[in-house]
Amino acid sequence: MIGKCIEGVHKLNPIVHCISNYVTANSCANILLAVKASPIMADDCDEVEEIVSISSSLCLNIGTLNKRTVESMIRAGKTANKSGKPVVLDPVGIGASRLRTETAKKILSELKVDLVRANISEICALSGINIKSRGVDASIELSDEKKLMSAVETVKKFALVQRCITVATGKVDVVSDGATTYLIYNGSELMKNVTGTGCQLSSLCAAFIASNKDDMLSAAAECVAAMGIAGEIAKKRMKNLDGNASYANYIIDAIFNMNSKQIFEGAKYEILR
Amino acid sequence: MIGKCIEGVHKLNPIVHCISNYVTANSCANILLAVKASPIMADDCDEVEEIVSISSSLCLNIGTLNKRTVESMIRAGKTANKSGKPVVLDPVGIGASRLRTETAKKILSELKVDLVRANISEICALSGINIKSRGVDASIELSDEKKLMSAVETVKKFALVQRCITVATGKVDVVSDGATTYLIYNGSELMKNVTGTGCQLSSLCAAFIASNKDDMLSAAAECVAAMGIAGEIAKKRMKNLDGNASYANYIIDAIFNMNSKQIFEGAKYEILR
Amino acid sequence: MIGKCIEGVHKLNPIVHCISNYVTANSCANILLAVKASPIMADDCDEVEEIVSISSSLCLNIGTLNKRTVESMIRAGKTANKSGKPVVLDPVGIGASRLRTETAKKILSELKVDLVRANISEICALSGINIKSRGVDASIELSDEKKLMSAVETVKKFALVQRCITVATGKVDVVSDGATTYLIYNGSELMKNVTGTGCQLSSLCAAFIASNKDDMLSAAAECVAAMGIAGEIAKKRMKNLDGNASYANYIIDAIFNMNSKQIFEGAKYEILR
Repeated sequence: MIGKCIEGVHKLNPIVHCISNYVTANSCANILLAVKASPIMADDCDEVEEIVSISSSLCLNIGTLNKRTVESMIRAGKTANKSGKPVVLDPVGIGASRLRTETAKKILSELKVDLVRANISEICALSGINIKSRGVDASIELSDEKKLMSAVETVKKFALVQRCITVATGKVDVVSDGATTYLIYNGSELMKNVTGTGCQLSSLCAAFIASNKDDMLSAAAECVAAMGIAGEIAKKRMKNLDGNASYANYIIDAIFNMNSKQIFEGAKYEILR
Repeated sequence: MIGKCIEGVHKLNPIVHCISNYVTANSCANILLAVKASPIMADDCDEVEEIVSISSSLCLNIGTLNKRTVESMIRAGKTANKSGKPVVLDPVGIGASRLRTETAKKILSELKVDLVRANISEICALSGINIKSRGVDASIELSDEKKLMSAVETVKKFALVQRCITVATGKVDVVSDGATTYLIYNGSELMKNVTGTGCQLSSLCAAFIASNKDDMLSAAAECVAAMGIAGEIAKKRMKNLDGNASYANYIIDAIFNMNSKQIFEGAKYEILR
Repeated sequence: MIGKCIEGVHKLNPIVHCISNYVTANSCANILLAVKASPIMADDCDEVEEIVSISSSLCLNIGTLNKRTVESMIRAGKTANKSGKPVVLDPVGIGASRLRTETAKKILSELKVDLVRANISEICALSGINIKSRGVDASIELSDEKKLMSAVETVKKFALVQRCITVATGKVDVVSDGATTYLIYNGSELMKNVTGTGCQLSSLCAAFIASNKDDMLSAAAECVAAMGIAGEIAKKRMKNLDGNASYANYIIDAIFNMNSKQIFEGAKYEILR
């Protein structure tokens, strides 16, 4: 049941520790503040363990990874695992380089990751399915039914094998823990014209699951729906002369103003079991 | 007397060298440009001394510190000290990790810092007063008189011990050199929903004191009032559907349009001697 | 003939690999998305070669360079050269430190750079002409005819010696390959109040020349005109209370909405042969 989890976020005000990329760190911080969470960005290996210890969850984003921060991610993740704090992985651009692919796989093998948020081609790359990555905004077209069902199977399998909630975003968003799968139809084509909407969603997921630990799957699905609804609200605000910069602001603004009722009424999804 | 120092900034167009964090570097640069200062961001230890030598002041921000940039901060600070250029420290998230606490203390012990800008719990952490940090947006509630006066004493003492102007922001902003203390009542609750308003204020302080070296305390107090007034103007601009992203832009816009008269008329403060 | 090259960008959707600074990376990514290009930011030396191999062009920006990323720039550039992918250099703040000057010269000597985008004093610094840099927004006044013609000669000579298209931005923008020179009169004084408009233009140039390889000079000139027109459109949108933050968004919005017709009608330039 989608609609109540945002109240958990608003109530807990979770601290989300982000080991982030420098391209979208600012928008991730602002969208976390929009949902009444507190972002803390820290990536030095000598401090990440302490930062995790005062945080509610951890979001690992490999968008501008380097060897220094990869080590920090592993250390932070192990600390989070020990204390049962949810870990989110956003394998930005995986498939585009061995460093990214190996880092994402290392994270998945050395850490218990609670949620992976990626686009469907990134999930394929992580699953070892051969798809030529086309940069970070890669996406398999999910327009026809057959391709969608094939993507769903990939996501479900990945979720089962990795034992984590898997959020694959695209034209249709797929959220699955392997047993239950949400297909979410919210969002707008305009969102891919804004850098970091994926990173922002990953950060939000870290806030949502940290605040709803007893039902992380619903929390993740609701979070995805909320982001999609924000994209729709933002689209309706678009005026003459507006473009992707104004749109980027409108998305964050929409999350700032979003409540349970809006999600309850606006979420368009179906559940496959 | 608050209101004239912004004219010094507009006239001097100071170059502010920021060793900054990657989350808020862009908004710090834009708010410096808004006040007609010139930002220059540079953090490699092989160039910071030269960069300081062409700058008017230096702003050290430990928001996403790492060991490489800590060394750069010390080097840059020593160069600034030698040539009498004001140094500002923003100890973001101090108390959240030993690395941050030790770095801030190292900076305070090895450098002459002219101004520290932090929230009140960060000042407490720097003073060795035991308060559990709650991420970077930590704040002691200053709502009741008694707590406020206790905070004022902490700030005054810190200013005296460290021999620097101390700017502690919160519900009420406290600006003190140990002898004279400003309590500033401008601002809006909305400001804490925007990432980096503290970092921005620290950068602005570096511009204000560099442009008003004969009365840095008034310059700091005026700068804090100006930022608060910007937060108020921005709040008045908020329309239906606006949220923290639009608000963030409105704050910078307000600084861009701010003049001496606005500060003179809008500043709400009292002076304790 | 200025006006058709943007269609090439819209059609090719080039992937632009940026080794960028952390101050303006977000706005560079968003302005690339605005022109329907795909940004990919990656700076670890272990992955840049692979990232270049899936990209259409490479943009090297030394705005917050450090020794780690300098090595990555050289590696990425060599890979781009081998496969004939255009390389753009933005020597941000060159002249302000030896590290910047030496890095820019190293890049120019070790790589084939197709286009350099800088302000006129940065071009002077690169040419060894002695001008005291005044931070990254340095500019020689190009208001009088004599100074303009002297700048044009500097740019032409630089283009000939370095065998690259040279884009020198200022009050008048000069674009030259040494033989043909465009003087472009678009733009607004307001643009220098926004951090990163230069970086954004460099990124856009990388998209434009990658999409118009048979006539990179026209593509560069058109790109500069497009950015200037965006600055003009953005200025017309400025309302009461708007400042440089809103203006920054309006520029990106204008690129998002820009088409061939707007450039054709709006470009103000002359060609010197």
